[in-house]
Amino acid sequence: MDLTATTTTLAGAAAEVARLLPSRVFDPVLAGVLISADAHGVVLAGSDREHAVRLARTALVHAEGRALVPAKPLAETLRALDTEQVRLVVEGSRLAIRTPGARFALPLLDVDVHPGVPEPPPLTGTVRGALLQAAVVAAASAASRDDALPIFTGLRMWVENGRLAMMASDRYRMAMVTLPWQPAPDGAPLDLLAPAAVLVDVVKQVGRADSVALHADADRIGLTWGSDSVSTALLAAPFPDERARKLLAATVSGTVEVDADALAAAVRRASPYAGPHGTVTLVPADGELRVQGSDPQAGESEEAVKAVVSGHHGTKVYQARYLADALRAFTGRTVRMRLQDGLRPTVFTAEPDETEVELTYLVVPMRPPAH
Amino acid sequence: MDLTATTTTLAGAAAEVARLLPSRVFDPVLAGVLISADAHGVVLAGSDREHAVRLARTALVHAEGRALVPAKPLAETLRALDTEQVRLVVEGSRLAIRTPGARFALPLLDVDVHPGVPEPPPLTGTVRGALLQAAVVAAASAASRDDALPIFTGLRMWVENGRLAMMASDRYRMAMVTLPWQPAPDGAPLDLLAPAAVLVDVVKQVGRADSVALHADADRIGLTWGSDSVSTALLAAPFPDERARKLLAATVSGTVEVDADALAAAVRRASPYAGPHGTVTLVPADGELRVQGSDPQAGESEEAVKAVVSGHHGTKVYQARYLADALRAFTGRTVRMRLQDGLRPTVFTAEPDETEVELTYLVVPMRPPAH
Repeated sequence: MDLTATTTTLAGAAAEVARLLPSRVFDPVLAGVLISADAHGVVLAGSDREHAVRLARTALVHAEGRALVPAKPLAETLRALDTEQVRLVVEGSRLAIRTPGARFALPLLDVDVHPGVPEPPPLTGTVRGALLQAAVVAAASAASRDDALPIFTGLRMWVENGRLAMMASDRYRMAMVTLPWQPAPDGAPLDLLAPAAVLVDVVKQVGRADSVALHADADRIGLTWGSDSVSTALLAAPFPDERARKLLAATVSGTVEVDADALAAAVRRASPYAGPHGTVTLVPADGELRVQGSDPQAGESEEAVKAVVSGHHGTKVYQARYLADALRAFTGRTVRMRLQDGLRPTVFTAEPDETEVELTYLVVPMRPPAH
Repeated sequence: MDLTATTTTLAGAAAEVARLLPSRVFDPVLAGVLISADAHGVVLAGSDREHAVRLARTALVHAEGRALVPAKPLAETLRALDTEQVRLVVEGSRLAIRTPGARFALPLLDVDVHPGVPEPPPLTGTVRGALLQAAVVAAASAASRDDALPIFTGLRMWVENGRLAMMASDRYRMAMVTLPWQPAPDGAPLDLLAPAAVLVDVVKQVGRADSVALHADADRIGLTWGSDSVSTALLAAPFPDERARKLLAATVSGTVEVDADALAAAVRRASPYAGPHGTVTLVPADGELRVQGSDPQAGESEEAVKAVVSGHHGTKVYQARYLADALRAFTGRTVRMRLQDGLRPTVFTAEPDETEVELTYLVVPMRPPAH
C-alpha cells in the first residue's frame, strides 16, 4: 500500500476512528485502524466487535493494498504534522508515515486476526443531520450514565405517526422527542434500544449532513452520512414502554410559562446554595417564579423570574442539575411547565418551532426537606 | 456595611481571593473573604496565615463597616450575576448580595477569630510586570511539583550585578533567569527561596502592570501592583547554591543552534514514540539535528530539523517533556544548545532579546537504553 493524502483530511478521519474505538482493549488488534487503499481512494475503518466505523476519504493511491496499525499513535502523529500532504506507505513490517524530513513507522498488526468491520444493517429511513443531533442530545440528557442498570443508559427509538420518536429515562427524569422522518421504500422497521452515550458521541459529526440514513436490525443500529458509516450493538434489555407512556399522561394542576434561559440562569445562580442534596425550590407566585436555595454553610438565595402562572400550584423541590438539564434542552425558547400534585413529575414542553423537533421533558420533584 | 459596586470588578476581585486561598482548610474562617468598606472604596482581603491577598476596588459606600464571608460562594454568586451593578449589605447575621429581583444571603463568619491579613514586608525594589511574569514562568518550569523535597519546589531569588536573578531546579533540569531590576532607595535586601507554584499563580495577574514592587523579609515575600497586594511565606530550606553554580560552569564539547519552535514541534511529534521512559534521542549531524523516538508498541520515528552544528558532539537521550519545557521557555527564538560529554547537562541559551530577560536552561541527559 502506498498513498498520498491531505494531512488534515486523514488526521480528522484517524482521530474519529480512534475516538469511537475504546482505547483499552484486551486484544490490541481491536484498537487498530484498518487502512484500505484502492482506485477509489482510502478507507479508514475499525471495529471492536461492539462498535464499527468506516470512513472513506480522497487519496492519490500509488499502490493498492491494506494495513492494520494502532489507532492512537496514527491519530496523534497525523494530528501533530504541519505539512499539507502526507504519504502512507507499507515498508516491510511497518506502515511509514512520511513527510519531507520525517518518517514515523508504525508496526503492522495482523490483518488476518482482525474480526472485520461489519457492514451497516438494512436501511430503515433518513432524517436531517441537524435535527437528529438536536433530538439525540436532548433525549439522551435524561439517560443514566450508570452501567449497572443498562436499560436506563439506553435511547429508545421507534417510528410513530410517521415521525421518528426517541425516549430515555434514568427514573428521575424522562425525555421524549419526535422529529420528521423519511421512511425508506420497503425499509426495515425501526424499534430498538441503543446505547445513548454512543449515539451522542456519533451525532457530534452529523450536524452539517443534509441527510443521515438510519440502519437497523435485531442486533445493531447504524448511521451513514456522506462517506461515513458508524454502527453499534443494541442493548438487549426491554425498555419499560408502558410505564413511560403512563408518566406522559399528566394530570395537570397548574402551569408556569417562563423563558427557559432566564430560569436556567437563576437556577445556576442558586446552585451555590443548593445544599447537601443539590436541590433548588421553585415557588410559583403572581407573575413570577421564585427560585430558592438554602445551604447550611453558604447561606440562602431567592430570585424572582418573570413568568405566566395559572391554575392551582404549590412549591416544588428539584435536583438543581436535573432542572438545568431540562431547561438546556429548551434553550432560546419559552418553556411551559405543567405541575402535578405531590411527587408526580413536572412536564416541560414548548411550542413547536421551525425545526419541527418536539420535546417533552419530565422531571420528578423531590420530597421537600423536613424542618 | 452597605455598598454598591460594578459587578465584574467585584466578581474579579472575589475570584482572585478565592483562587489564592486554599479551599480546603480546617478552619472555615481561613477560607473567608474579609470585606472592608470605607470612604476610599472597598477592600477584599484574605489570609490562611501562609498566603495573604488584599485587593482595593472602587465602590459607592453607603455605610462603612466590614464583614467576613465564605470566599467560594461569594465568588460563584458574583460571577453568575448578569446585572451591571451589585449591592453588598449586612442584614442581621447575613451579608446580602442584592440585584433587582434577587437576594443571596451569605452567613457572616466571626471577624474576631480571623488572624488578620498581614501587611507586605519591606520594599526591596521594582520590576516590569511583563518581564517578571515571563521570568517566573520560565524559571519555575524547572521546579519540582513534589512537596516531599521542598527545596526543589522553590524559586531562588536574589540580586546580582544589579539584576534580579531567579533559579529553580528539580535535580534533572535547572533554569536561571536574570532581568532588569530597580532597587528601592534604602531597600531591604532580596535573597530568598519562595514557593515556585504560588508565584506562578500570582504573576498570572501582573502581566499588564508597568511596575511590580517586590517586598521581602526573612519570613515572607510580597508582590504589590496597582491596588493589589499578595504575600506568601518563604520556604525555610537552604537551596544548594554552590552546586547550582558549578553546573552553570559548562565544559562544552559541541554546540547546536536551532529554531526553538521547530525543534519543539519535532519533539512533540516524536512523543507518541517516546517509549516506556518517555525519552527522545537527539542526533546532531551535518546541518541538521535528528529527533528519534522508539516504542515497543507504537513503532519508531525520525525527523530532521535544520540546525547549525559545530564542535565535537554525540547522541543524547532526554526526557521528552523536560526537553519540551526547556524549548517552550525559548518560544519564538533561536536556541543555542551547548553539549557536554557523558551525562553532564546540556545548556540552553539564546541571544538576549529586546525584553532583556536572560535565560539559561539546563537539562540532564539520560543514560542511553541498553540494547
